[in-house]
Amino acid sequence: MIIIMSNNATDKEIKAVEQRLTDYGFKTHPIYGEMKTVIGAIGDKRRLTMDQLKLMSGVENVVPIMRPYKLAGRELKKDPTVIDVNGVKIGGSHLAVFAGPCAIESHEQFSFIAQKVKESGANILRGGAFKPRSSPYSFAGLEGEGLKIMRKAGDETGMPICTEVLDTRDVELVASYADIMQIGARKMQKFKLLREVGKCNKPILLKRGLSSTMEEWLMAAEYIMSEGNENVILCERGIRTFEPSTRNTFDLSAIPVSKELSHLPIIADPSHAAGTYKYVDALAKGAVAAGADGLMIEVHNCPEKAMSDGEQSLTPEHFEALMKELRPIAEAVGKTL
Amino acid sequence: MIIIMSNNATDKEIKAVEQRLTDYGFKTHPIYGEMKTVIGAIGDKRRLTMDQLKLMSGVENVVPIMRPYKLAGRELKKDPTVIDVNGVKIGGSHLAVFAGPCAIESHEQFSFIAQKVKESGANILRGGAFKPRSSPYSFAGLEGEGLKIMRKAGDETGMPICTEVLDTRDVELVASYADIMQIGARKMQKFKLLREVGKCNKPILLKRGLSSTMEEWLMAAEYIMSEGNENVILCERGIRTFEPSTRNTFDLSAIPVSKELSHLPIIADPSHAAGTYKYVDALAKGAVAAGADGLMIEVHNCPEKAMSDGEQSLTPEHFEALMKELRPIAEAVGKTL
Amino acid sequence: MIIIMSNNATDKEIKAVEQRLTDYGFKTHPIYGEMKTVIGAIGDKRRLTMDQLKLMSGVENVVPIMRPYKLAGRELKKDPTVIDVNGVKIGGSHLAVFAGPCAIESHEQFSFIAQKVKESGANILRGGAFKPRSSPYSFAGLEGEGLKIMRKAGDETGMPICTEVLDTRDVELVASYADIMQIGARKMQKFKLLREVGKCNKPILLKRGLSSTMEEWLMAAEYIMSEGNENVILCERGIRTFEPSTRNTFDLSAIPVSKELSHLPIIADPSHAAGTYKYVDALAKGAVAAGADGLMIEVHNCPEKAMSDGEQSLTPEHFEALMKELRPIAEAVGKTL
Amino acid sequence: MIIIMSNNATDKEIKAVEQRLTDYGFKTHPIYGEMKTVIGAIGDKRRLTMDQLKLMSGVENVVPIMRPYKLAGRELKKDPTVIDVNGVKIGGSHLAVFAGPCAIESHEQFSFIAQKVKESGANILRGGAFKPRSSPYSFAGLEGEGLKIMRKAGDETGMPICTEVLDTRDVELVASYADIMQIGARKMQKFKLLREVGKCNKPILLKRGLSSTMEEWLMAAEYIMSEGNENVILCERGIRTFEPSTRNTFDLSAIPVSKELSHLPIIADPSHAAGTYKYVDALAKGAVAAGADGLMIEVHNCPEKAMSDGEQSLTPEHFEALMKELRPIAEAVGKTL
Repeated sequence: MIIIMSNNATDKEIKAVEQRLTDYGFKTHPIYGEMKTVIGAIGDKRRLTMDQLKLMSGVENVVPIMRPYKLAGRELKKDPTVIDVNGVKIGGSHLAVFAGPCAIESHEQFSFIAQKVKESGANILRGGAFKPRSSPYSFAGLEGEGLKIMRKAGDETGMPICTEVLDTRDVELVASYADIMQIGARKMQKFKLLREVGKCNKPILLKRGLSSTMEEWLMAAEYIMSEGNENVILCERGIRTFEPSTRNTFDLSAIPVSKELSHLPIIADPSHAAGTYKYVDALAKGAVAAGADGLMIEVHNCPEKAMSDGEQSLTPEHFEALMKELRPIAEAVGKTL
Repeated sequence: MIIIMSNNATDKEIKAVEQRLTDYGFKTHPIYGEMKTVIGAIGDKRRLTMDQLKLMSGVENVVPIMRPYKLAGRELKKDPTVIDVNGVKIGGSHLAVFAGPCAIESHEQFSFIAQKVKESGANILRGGAFKPRSSPYSFAGLEGEGLKIMRKAGDETGMPICTEVLDTRDVELVASYADIMQIGARKMQKFKLLREVGKCNKPILLKRGLSSTMEEWLMAAEYIMSEGNENVILCERGIRTFEPSTRNTFDLSAIPVSKELSHLPIIADPSHAAGTYKYVDALAKGAVAAGADGLMIEVHNCPEKAMSDGEQSLTPEHFEALMKELRPIAEAVGKTL
Repeated sequence: MIIIMSNNATDKEIKAVEQRLTDYGFKTHPIYGEMKTVIGAIGDKRRLTMDQLKLMSGVENVVPIMRPYKLAGRELKKDPTVIDVNGVKIGGSHLAVFAGPCAIESHEQFSFIAQKVKESGANILRGGAFKPRSSPYSFAGLEGEGLKIMRKAGDETGMPICTEVLDTRDVELVASYADIMQIGARKMQKFKLLREVGKCNKPILLKRGLSSTMEEWLMAAEYIMSEGNENVILCERGIRTFEPSTRNTFDLSAIPVSKELSHLPIIADPSHAAGTYKYVDALAKGAVAAGADGLMIEVHNCPEKAMSDGEQSLTPEHFEALMKELRPIAEAVGKTL
Repeated sequence: MIIIMSNNATDKEIKAVEQRLTDYGFKTHPIYGEMKTVIGAIGDKRRLTMDQLKLMSGVENVVPIMRPYKLAGRELKKDPTVIDVNGVKIGGSHLAVFAGPCAIESHEQFSFIAQKVKESGANILRGGAFKPRSSPYSFAGLEGEGLKIMRKAGDETGMPICTEVLDTRDVELVASYADIMQIGARKMQKFKLLREVGKCNKPILLKRGLSSTMEEWLMAAEYIMSEGNENVILCERGIRTFEPSTRNTFDLSAIPVSKELSHLPIIADPSHAAGTYKYVDALAKGAVAAGADGLMIEVHNCPEKAMSDGEQSLTPEHFEALMKELRPIAEAVGKTL
């Protein structure tokens, strides 16, 4: 790391910082400028943190040199990760399409939608059995019953299933049904949950937190990977900004930035970002053209009667039309849909 | 709620919306303007959601009339809530001062700091046994051992203790030691955890999420209260914005806004908002003058060697000086410190 | 508009609001709910503002029904506007490509780049003669001399030219050279400047302010249009958020949202949004796929030596490759490039 | 500055960066770590910019060492600046109170309010003659006529007057009437206007832009100061965030941060931040307690009928009560009101 001393730091203060670094096993490289002294330090940051150095007298700032994530980063693993879920590939030249309703409401509803999205070209089935709801008075999902319905629809259609796990106590149960487990945006920094799913051997879909930086997101992936589970799929679903015309602001740049910093596949969830079905087409097309490895799209047979997030769901007919329009765009960027 | 029809909505579309509302037991009050029709609807929103109405043909927007929180709101309970924790009062004319280190490191360290902050005027002891850390490679707290150390220091000094609970599985354990349980900013929308602590009969300190609106925050309080636990203390600790000079942006307005919308007490955590000890004094004074019911301040005997968040901790000497400076400000706004 | 009275508003307060509305020529439609009274009011909001009503005793909130922009909105003009600049069309099925360096440095440099971007398929030449710079010590542009160089290069290549006007005093001068005048992001709410360019008969490229909502942006267009100049081109160039990995966050949703709210054409500026050439390809492709009517891209023959914004400029070779990759995407969404 | 090379930078790339730095007169100090090479460079950044270096092959990042502002910064001038306007001092231990209506509506109105705020303890008169309005259909101020009314009221009450200048063409006119000229939030980066007022010998009140960082704000002050006018007063008036319950989020930390980085006085404008009179008291008290050098508060004799911003104005009675409550707080932090 680089320690920047303030303009009026004394020789004594500079020496004290150098001494402390040396005591903790760092090699120091001071640079004496006209106005400021700067000290380069090479060593193990875990032993002496940047925070601790910032507090020393005469220190103006401390700048890190190395990125904090190792396993999720591109520095040690150059090739993009391709995840295989029962034969469906996520990453590389494959475009994964996760589709299904927000909440699982009944076997009849779910099975119908599953069949429809499969026919239109979706290759992974999504749905919510446990639903995080911002009001305690809203429908919170069918829970265990929902998992069974989902598994059955997955088996009927031959599609892997992806569903969210909300709580450490439910990890075992959800893992026994799901092919891919989802960590929702509001739980991206629920570190105990990250550790638990890191111990499973199921791929994890990790949604970006509403106010998470790219670095924090990759650190959340690092949590999962540091427990031994390297099959993490990133999912951009919009960040919180001042703009009220969409529920969240879909951050298109997250796609090329994650490709630069990480080898993990990244998909886009235009439904949750927009918060309304009206903008899903445009965001989905934009995401694919920008290089996303897949999409997650909410589809409901009767959005007006959906028990959760109807406003942002596509009808099966709308979804089918979108899939047709996506194909030439996917091809233009070298992906097969 | 109010349904705003679009300019070119047809009579048929307007009738369909009215019919649907009537079918679900709403009373409708249409207003026909020159350009637009607007329909007032009185009834139970849980039966027919705003989302579902927004999707009907010809509907431009749906505006709620009632606030979504009941128990946390000021409409049904006018008087400010005062919470009594072993004789220490939070709310009303009492200024609660929570102080202590970020992480509990040892009995010796914790006991020393506890004694010091008590002497300076703190009345509640804070400390972290379970620590949420953004890197999987950082110190995560002494966990159970930390709780015992904390309880002991609380008993020695006669101060109630407040500590964070991270996971539903730990609620019972933490509740058996702590006097106040804290829900951290990153878990403010961890709804299953909110429900669990709502079932305990211990006061809950609910930190505002980094990107949570006032309404979402009060809805999180509503989750806890809807389980029967009405002793919720709000804690403003900064929100995420574009400004990099502080870790988060301390939202001073949260104090008067919460006082208008809710009867719950609100305290301020200047340490986490600022991310550096340098601005803690100014924010603490500002918060008290603006009407906060208390403060939560990190104090460490040797910030340079703290295992977590040293950069934002005050030394015991600094804390003592701050407490002295706070007294006349507290008095000026009618609070006793 | 809709006036929402607070739960405990008295009959007298409700009557006073109704009376005031009647006095100002509004027709009132009160709706008496169990908890709250709501008053629908039809009339001319310019005579009695929402602000004024909000201050009346017993009023909780006032909700607008009509959008504040008329000329820029889609309610009165359904068909998308297509702007013709010397035969180059912007809007509809035409994809406009504005390309050129950030700052005009010399005739030799500018003429070379103009030729190159034309060969690759750009159809409008962009460049800065007057440069807004955040430091008073940075290069501020060749000003009048730059305009001449630009005009000459435009005539040589047969391309319309687009350049920024910073100050009301320069409008006449810039208008005498430019085919399209640009209002920069930092001046989007410089209302006197908007009025001045509204009096010119040249198309105006209106960049979105860094922290402007869609509504504020369309109100800025309304300023220009209210002076008689209806040829406004919107340009999304990223908004300010907490994410530091790009200079600004490119708001892809601005494309479908503007298409819903307004008939004006919208283009995307991926160079300024990203702040680095590395992400320009992905953002440009995403914007076209999402339905943008054009792109504005910075190209410099030697980015490493550019006097302004080199970091975000493409080389002519990079630009040529991008244009080739964009063609099939443009075709897939029904645009000709 | 510090150049951080990427992990896989070749020796040739490292040498090329060193050579380039040497060519431009920099002294280089390479530090060779196990994974990365870092190059410290001492020299004149205006000759070779960070942007240009970032584009060189093998460069990962470039980190600045010196702050970009000199005149506004605290490094060269340690003592806080105290500005004297006709005997009223701003800065140091003096609390300046700017009060008056948003817009000047008539001599009668303005003179009445001026008298009232003076009696309550205000020492500078504020009012808008030129009004920036987000709608072209709103009242835009009395312009020249307003300046005359304001001057007269200032002379009658013996208070200096402060008013906004919107356009470079109006600087001379406004300067001939006003004692302090205000640069509004939306014009904080209107660089030509900053240069013009920098040439006047009147103090400048510089509002923070809605989405400006502290550094950008101080760079705007630097623009003014680099033209020779060192009498700049900073004014925090809220930044744009995701929180909708206030018009903007008042950034209390701006006060201690500016005190650390700059010697310029800083005042707070709670009226514009809150957007409603209801929260003005709390924000005003908080700002004074946190160390602000003054306040700017909107006062209107009849807010319900104000032609602009009535919602956020205090009545003269409310203002008088607030001033009384502020006195003990000001005293507690060593300021005289």
